[in-house]
Amino acid sequence: MKLKAKLLEIQAGGRRIAILDNETASFLGVHSSDRVKITYKQERLNAIVNIASNFPRNYIGLYEEISRKLGIESGENVEVQPAETPDSLSYVQAKIDGKRLRENEVKTIVQDVVERHLSDVELSSFVTALYIHGISMEEVEALSKAMVETGCTLTLDEKQILDKHSVGGIPGDKTTILIVPIVAAAGLVIPKTSSRAITSPAGTADRVETLCPVDLSVEEIKEVVNKTNGCMVWGGALELAPADDLFIQVEYPLAIDPLLLPSIMSKKKAIGTTHLVLDIPTGRGAKIKTMGEARALGQDFIDLGKRLGIEVQSAVTFGEQPLGYAIGPALEAREALSAIMGDGPADLKDKATSIAGILLEMVGIKNGKQIAQSLLKAGKAERKLREIIEAQGGNAKIKPEDIGFGDKKAEIATRIEGRVLWINNKSIAQVAREAGAPKEKGAGVILKTKLGEYVKKGGVLFEIYGERDTKMEAAIELANSLEPIGLSKKPEERMLMDRVPTRIVHKKTFMLER
Amino acid sequence: MKLKAKLLEIQAGGRRIAILDNETASFLGVHSSDRVKITYKQERLNAIVNIASNFPRNYIGLYEEISRKLGIESGENVEVQPAETPDSLSYVQAKIDGKRLRENEVKTIVQDVVERHLSDVELSSFVTALYIHGISMEEVEALSKAMVETGCTLTLDEKQILDKHSVGGIPGDKTTILIVPIVAAAGLVIPKTSSRAITSPAGTADRVETLCPVDLSVEEIKEVVNKTNGCMVWGGALELAPADDLFIQVEYPLAIDPLLLPSIMSKKKAIGTTHLVLDIPTGRGAKIKTMGEARALGQDFIDLGKRLGIEVQSAVTFGEQPLGYAIGPALEAREALSAIMGDGPADLKDKATSIAGILLEMVGIKNGKQIAQSLLKAGKAERKLREIIEAQGGNAKIKPEDIGFGDKKAEIATRIEGRVLWINNKSIAQVAREAGAPKEKGAGVILKTKLGEYVKKGGVLFEIYGERDTKMEAAIELANSLEPIGLSKKPEERMLMDRVPTRIVHKKTFMLER
Repeated sequence: MKLKAKLLEIQAGGRRIAILDNETASFLGVHSSDRVKITYKQERLNAIVNIASNFPRNYIGLYEEISRKLGIESGENVEVQPAETPDSLSYVQAKIDGKRLRENEVKTIVQDVVERHLSDVELSSFVTALYIHGISMEEVEALSKAMVETGCTLTLDEKQILDKHSVGGIPGDKTTILIVPIVAAAGLVIPKTSSRAITSPAGTADRVETLCPVDLSVEEIKEVVNKTNGCMVWGGALELAPADDLFIQVEYPLAIDPLLLPSIMSKKKAIGTTHLVLDIPTGRGAKIKTMGEARALGQDFIDLGKRLGIEVQSAVTFGEQPLGYAIGPALEAREALSAIMGDGPADLKDKATSIAGILLEMVGIKNGKQIAQSLLKAGKAERKLREIIEAQGGNAKIKPEDIGFGDKKAEIATRIEGRVLWINNKSIAQVAREAGAPKEKGAGVILKTKLGEYVKKGGVLFEIYGERDTKMEAAIELANSLEPIGLSKKPEERMLMDRVPTRIVHKKTFMLER
Repeated sequence: MKLKAKLLEIQAGGRRIAILDNETASFLGVHSSDRVKITYKQERLNAIVNIASNFPRNYIGLYEEISRKLGIESGENVEVQPAETPDSLSYVQAKIDGKRLRENEVKTIVQDVVERHLSDVELSSFVTALYIHGISMEEVEALSKAMVETGCTLTLDEKQILDKHSVGGIPGDKTTILIVPIVAAAGLVIPKTSSRAITSPAGTADRVETLCPVDLSVEEIKEVVNKTNGCMVWGGALELAPADDLFIQVEYPLAIDPLLLPSIMSKKKAIGTTHLVLDIPTGRGAKIKTMGEARALGQDFIDLGKRLGIEVQSAVTFGEQPLGYAIGPALEAREALSAIMGDGPADLKDKATSIAGILLEMVGIKNGKQIAQSLLKAGKAERKLREIIEAQGGNAKIKPEDIGFGDKKAEIATRIEGRVLWINNKSIAQVAREAGAPKEKGAGVILKTKLGEYVKKGGVLFEIYGERDTKMEAAIELANSLEPIGLSKKPEERMLMDRVPTRIVHKKTFMLER
């Protein structure tokens, strides 16, 4: 039937949604969530119907995603007909019923996700079904490939392209800022793309951004890598696996992460990675809790890598506390810069050279860790970092003290004396976020003690930095209500861990970082 | 932070959604799908954030659901802060993880569904998790009670309130129009609320509407029941279990129906039902396929009834073909009226008196079916029907021929001769819908043969009725491409049922009728 277009002049977040009133929908024989085919001149597209009770009859409301695509003006007529549901929806339904999906079925789903033919309700149900039923390795492979095929790729004319990735889960993990220069200084190519923080106080892109620009185009990335062997850029705008961003939009509110493997590996495949070390921080307060889980996940990545033509090794790393002392974009960048200049925390340097060492050994270089250590000690990694900073448009001569941070500071001291028994990764991350990280780049936390150290009564456990008073107050309040760092004079006399019912209800926190 | 309200002048289908641009959201520290607390003068509410890339900075876009509730004008300032996720979301997450939910957890979820504190993504994931993991009887009970508590109720001053319900699945099931008058004629109270069709060619409310008005208020219903002992009204506007309507909005696109039990039983409890017969049409083309499934479902309803204080008996009925000959609102009403006047199909009358008989026996009347039959034969049921029609505002003297139907007619004939081996319920329903039912009340199908009958070559299998040529053409095309009625001269010589790969891909059709 013919309907008049009413342009809504607002976006639906990329979704293709059309609004009908009850009567018009009923006349067309469509319900809320059904599809309609909209034809205007030569253009034709499918949209998902929402019903608004106060909408004028014989009109169709079009969000900008649709009106732009059709090139239509307000008040013009369109032809609207009920459309069939896409095939992908029947595959989604098959997955809900616990069936394994075939490669072409997975591909159809991913294509329809990218083309916005599936609604949020359908996408949410699909992701939930994947989470509950699990995904076979064949499905993971098909998902990874489909996610690469529906996105952009980076093509470097190199035989070996190295990469590292962390599944995330511990605050302060600024290892990339050391690994990329070490590997590049060894003459190997490592075009590192990173994400910004979603639920953490800092993503690698947030950290690096305090040193130099990270929002580079594909052509600019190629130039930087050709010049320096490496780069540290934000991958978000490169459209490497756009399906993943759409999956994340429903995974985030649900706090589930069933697409971890294809999400990470599709992005690696899209930039042409041949050798990858996957860092799996493991510990009670990390994303991965036990060695068993870590080994299983590591093996899954190796298996998937084989199917995709990427050689993978997994590094299970100590994840019981934050890495180094600094948490928050600017504070971490300072610490990383200090470390590459020779100072800085031992755990950060050990982890960076261990992972860089594995990468070197994967391409045939013996004694990888020692070589990584010597590249660091000899200042070659530092020179490489400065080359990369300059190539990306930053100041090559930057010193740690040039990196500004929040001018407001608070100290959290201990009321008891004792040895540090545990540091709660999530609580530390929450305090840093409450203080304003990652949005306020200078906000964050500096630990003044680490596991096993002895702190006297009144000693400072950590400092909070921020840029705004209200946020500082909230962060201090949170720091005092949580117990981010636990001490005991005699650990053997602190056996009670918790009680049920609990005194305080701890909110489930979810780490969605890839 | 303070933001300027921009009123969007459109509804979001009841959802409380606020629009922010990227920068403003990032400054607030909220992502798409996070919640914000909006304060305006004395009013405060929580909304779910959508991010639109072209939205003006420092504005918040408010759909009408929010702006009306706040009583705000465009351009006024509101205070916006990140809000915590509701507790119900952590219970949804627990269900995704396969945990059983406690009564208070279920209640919190249902309350938040009704108050629109959960997004479509969250609701979809919850319904999917219920479908995959299953629901315990404790959870079903808690869901039913919570759905009653969050809705309106009908309070009749009666000790015994009888009711019948069909889980649906076969076209032409107009039994209610006979049962209600029979039971009411026996002096028992039966205030029947029905739904309109969602995926079928006719719901009971659609059928009855061709006899008299069905959209009555609670007060009007009480009046009708006080006067006649019965009623046949549309339950949709009574808000008996509003959570159910919101669940259906996500169940429908997903074609899953995990809330069947609480959905039906909460509405029964809300009108005070004490005795219920549940009709479970069973057959290959019905919703319930096997006797085993039917018995299990029937027992579930009985168990749930005990928990809710409703005495339930389940009737497993023959569901291998449509009931009677007529399919479509007006055609079915004609057939039901004829049947109650003495004519009409035997299967309809047998089913109606069987179910009415069980109801009578449940309240202590012996030989229920015989009494039901005699009430029908003696014309008492007819007189009662006419009383109800009049009380609801219809014409008490209505004759079958007064009920108009589509003036366009097509006959579908058979090219082969033989006995009717099967009638495909879904195909018949699809043809009737394609012809315009239920929206066009006069559209539908009249069967000219039933299972086991012999049809000569060229004999008419069924007629299609409609009100519009285009729809008639589509229905005829569909009727010819499907094979709604299968014949064979020698059934023993038609052994091949299907082949893989199939010649025609049959779309999965989903019956969401309660």
